Amino acid sequence: MTVDIEGANRTAIERMLAARPILTGLGRARDVVPGMRDNLLLHAGPPIEWERMSGPLRGAVIGALIFEGLAGDEAGAVALVERGEVELEPCHHHAAVGPMAGVTSPSMQVYVVEDSTHGHRTFSNLNEGYGKVLRYGAFSAEVLDRLRWMNDTAAPVLAAALARAGGIDLRALIAEALHMGDEGHNRNKAGSILFLKLLAPHIARVAPDGETASDVLRYLGDNALAVLNPVMAACKAMADAAHGIEGSTIVSTMARNGTDFGIRVSGLGDRWLTAPAMVPDGLYFPGFSSADANPDIGDSTITETAGIGAFAMAAAPAIVTFIGGAPQDAVHATLEMYEITAAEHTHFTIPALGFRGTPVGIDLRKVVELGVTPRVNTGIAHRQAGVGQVGAGLVRPPLAVFEEALVAFAERYGF
Amino acid sequence: MTVDIEGANRTAIERMLAARPILTGLGRARDVVPGMRDNLLLHAGPPIEWERMSGPLRGAVIGALIFEGLAGDEAGAVALVERGEVELEPCHHHAAVGPMAGVTSPSMQVYVVEDSTHGHRTFSNLNEGYGKVLRYGAFSAEVLDRLRWMNDTAAPVLAAALARAGGIDLRALIAEALHMGDEGHNRNKAGSILFLKLLAPHIARVAPDGETASDVLRYLGDNALAVLNPVMAACKAMADAAHGIEGSTIVSTMARNGTDFGIRVSGLGDRWLTAPAMVPDGLYFPGFSSADANPDIGDSTITETAGIGAFAMAAAPAIVTFIGGAPQDAVHATLEMYEITAAEHTHFTIPALGFRGTPVGIDLRKVVELGVTPRVNTGIAHRQAGVGQVGAGLVRPPLAVFEEALVAFAERYGF
Repeated sequence: MTVDIEGANRTAIERMLAARPILTGLGRARDVVPGMRDNLLLHAGPPIEWERMSGPLRGAVIGALIFEGLAGDEAGAVALVERGEVELEPCHHHAAVGPMAGVTSPSMQVYVVEDSTHGHRTFSNLNEGYGKVLRYGAFSAEVLDRLRWMNDTAAPVLAAALARAGGIDLRALIAEALHMGDEGHNRNKAGSILFLKLLAPHIARVAPDGETASDVLRYLGDNALAVLNPVMAACKAMADAAHGIEGSTIVSTMARNGTDFGIRVSGLGDRWLTAPAMVPDGLYFPGFSSADANPDIGDSTITETAGIGAFAMAAAPAIVTFIGGAPQDAVHATLEMYEITAAEHTHFTIPALGFRGTPVGIDLRKVVELGVTPRVNTGIAHRQAGVGQVGAGLVRPPLAVFEEALVAFAERYGF
Repeated sequence: MTVDIEGANRTAIERMLAARPILTGLGRARDVVPGMRDNLLLHAGPPIEWERMSGPLRGAVIGALIFEGLAGDEAGAVALVERGEVELEPCHHHAAVGPMAGVTSPSMQVYVVEDSTHGHRTFSNLNEGYGKVLRYGAFSAEVLDRLRWMNDTAAPVLAAALARAGGIDLRALIAEALHMGDEGHNRNKAGSILFLKLLAPHIARVAPDGETASDVLRYLGDNALAVLNPVMAACKAMADAAHGIEGSTIVSTMARNGTDFGIRVSGLGDRWLTAPAMVPDGLYFPGFSSADANPDIGDSTITETAGIGAFAMAAAPAIVTFIGGAPQDAVHATLEMYEITAAEHTHFTIPALGFRGTPVGIDLRKVVELGVTPRVNTGIAHRQAGVGQVGAGLVRPPLAVFEEALVAFAERYGF
C-alpha cells in the first residue's frame, strides 16, 4: 500500500490553518455538548477509570458530583462512583477540552466555539481563576459557591454580551495576544484583557444591574487566565480540523489525565497512545516543592498541539518569571519546536523572530527521528485531592508515546 | 567653581526613579492646573508666538477657542488671537503635558497625577482617539462634539471610577505594559486595556446608566492610546522630580511645538534651548507622504525623557508594523540609548533583554560627546490646520539643541 504521507500532512496542516474558531455563545453542557447525559462527567486527558485517577482528578470528580446535587459530600460522591453510577469519559470524546482536571458536568455552562470554515463546534468550561479551584482538585464550599455564581450569574451575562457582540474571532484574538507577550497557554494576560475589552461595552448593556455588570467585569479582568478556556476550545477546533486525515502523521491531540499522557494522530483516527505522565519541572509557590506535585494533568496541551503555548514561547519572554528559566530559553524553546513541526503558522506570528509564524503541526516522524519531544507549559497541581495549584512550569511528554504511535502507524499502513 | 556633576546627576536620577506617579482623578483645567486662567490656552513644546505656529497647532488653537465659546468660527478665532486677546503658554509651564498640539483650554477636563513620593502634581488632557482630532489640528463640528462628550459625559464617570478605585499606580501600569509589548509612547495597546481593566468594574458602578457605562467602556477600550495622556503626565511627574538639581546635566524636558524642538536641562532651571524641529521618518497612511508632514510636534517626548517610548523599543518589537523598520531595529534602538543615559531603570524592565532596566536619564554630555541624539517615536500630523494625522514614525531631535545646552551649561557653571 502506498501512502502519501506528505500530501496527507499538507491537507491536515491546510485544514488546521484554515480553521477560524469563533466564540459564539455559552450553554449548559447537557444542552449543547454532543453525547452529554445526566450521569456523565467529562475529564481531561485520555480515558481512565476511577481506580487509576490521581488526587486532583478525583477531587474534581467529587466536587462536580456535589455541585450537581448527586452527592452530599465527599464520602457520598466516592460511594456513587464506586457503585458504578457515574460514567467518566474524556472531554475529547465530546468535542470538549478543560484545563487541569477538566471535569465538566451536565449542569455546567460551557463556551461554544464554532469553526466558521469547517462548521464543527467545540466546547470548554469556564475559568475559575486562582487559588482553590475545582480544576486543581479543590471542592470546598467556597469552590462550589464560586462555580454556582459563575454558572448562574456570570454565564448568562456573558452569553447575552457575546450575542450582542456578534461573537468573537478567537483566531484574531490569539494572534493579537501573541504580539502582546502572551504564549496563549500559561500566559494569557493580554488575551484575557482583550477578551474583557471586546465584551465590556456589551456586559454594561445586558447585565441586570450595575452591580452584576461590575462583578462580571471584575471576574474577567482580575483573572489573567479568563480567556484560557475559550482559547483551548479554539485550539481544539483547529486541531480537530486536522484530525482523521488518512495517512497523516500530524499529532492532533495531546492531553493528560494526571496519570497518563496521551496523544492521538490524525491518520490513526480516535485511537489513543498513552504512557505515564511526567512531573513538571518549574517554580513552586511558597511552602511547596516537587514532592507535592501531581504528574502532568489537563487538556491545555491542545494549545501546543495547535502551535501556541510553549511553541510560541519566544513571543512571551516575561513568562520566565512564572515558570522559570531565562528569556533566551523562551526563544530556544520555539526554535527547537520548528524541528519537529510541519509548518509555520500563517496567522500566529512572533514579532521578536521577525514575525515568523509559530511552529505548528507536530510531525510524529520528526519527534521519533530526532528524539525531540514537544515542549509543554503547564500549571502544577498538588497530588492530593482538595489542595489546589502548587506551581507552574515546563514538562515534556514521554518519548515512548510517540514511538508507540509510530509503530501503530506503520502497522496500520502496512510498512 | 567646582561642580559635582556626577553627584548632581545621581541625585537627579534617584529622584526620577523614586517618583511614584498615581493617577488620582480629573478636574477642569481652570480649577486644578496651576496658573490657568480664562483667556489662556496651553500648547505643546517650548514657547512660541502665533505668527510662528505651524498649521496643526494653529488648528488646535482655533478649535479650542470655538470649544470654549470664545469664538464662533475659524475667522473669529484667528481675529481673537491676532487682537492679542488670547494668551498662549507651554503646557510645561503649568505642570502639564499634551500629545501633538497639546492644546488645553480652561474648561477642558484633565487627568490629575500626583507623585506620592515628592508630592508634586502634573496634568494631561484626555485622549480623543484616532481620525479627525483636535490634537492633530482638526476642529470640525464632529471634533468639537467629541470633545464635549468626553468633557461632559466621560470625564465625570472616569473621575468617579478613579475615586472608587482609590487611584491607579501608573508606574506599576507602565511596568506591566512594557512586559506586554508596549513601549509606552506610540504603542499603548496593553497599557490602555490594563487601564480599562482597572476602571471597568468601577465604571459599571458609578455611571448614571448602562448605556453611559457602555459608551465610556468603549471609549477606553477602542482607543489603544487611551492611556497615553495619563502615562505622559506620569512621565512628566518623574521628569519633574529630576528637574532643577544644581549642577546636573540630565535632560528633564524634551518637547516640540511643531516649529521648534526644545529641551530643558535639570541644572539649567527653566531655560529652554531650542532649534528647528525635524520632519519624522515613518510610515504614512494611504494617500499621504512626507510632503504632507508637519515638523515634529507634541509633549509626548516626555516618555523618552523618562526612559520609555523609543528608549524601551526592545520591549515592543511589534511596533515596527506601525512606525516602520524590522524588529531587530527595535532592539538596537534601546541598546543605542544606553550610550547616552546615566542609568538603567529600576522599575521599567525589558524581558527580551533579560529584564534589563530601560535606559533612563539622558546625559547632555554623552549626547554631545558621542553625537548620538535621543530617539523619539511619534505620530505625524498634516502640516495644514484641520486635516489630522497622516502617519507615525521616528525622529531625532537636532544635535544643535544639545550643543547649545552644553555651551549654556559651561557658561552657567563657569567652565
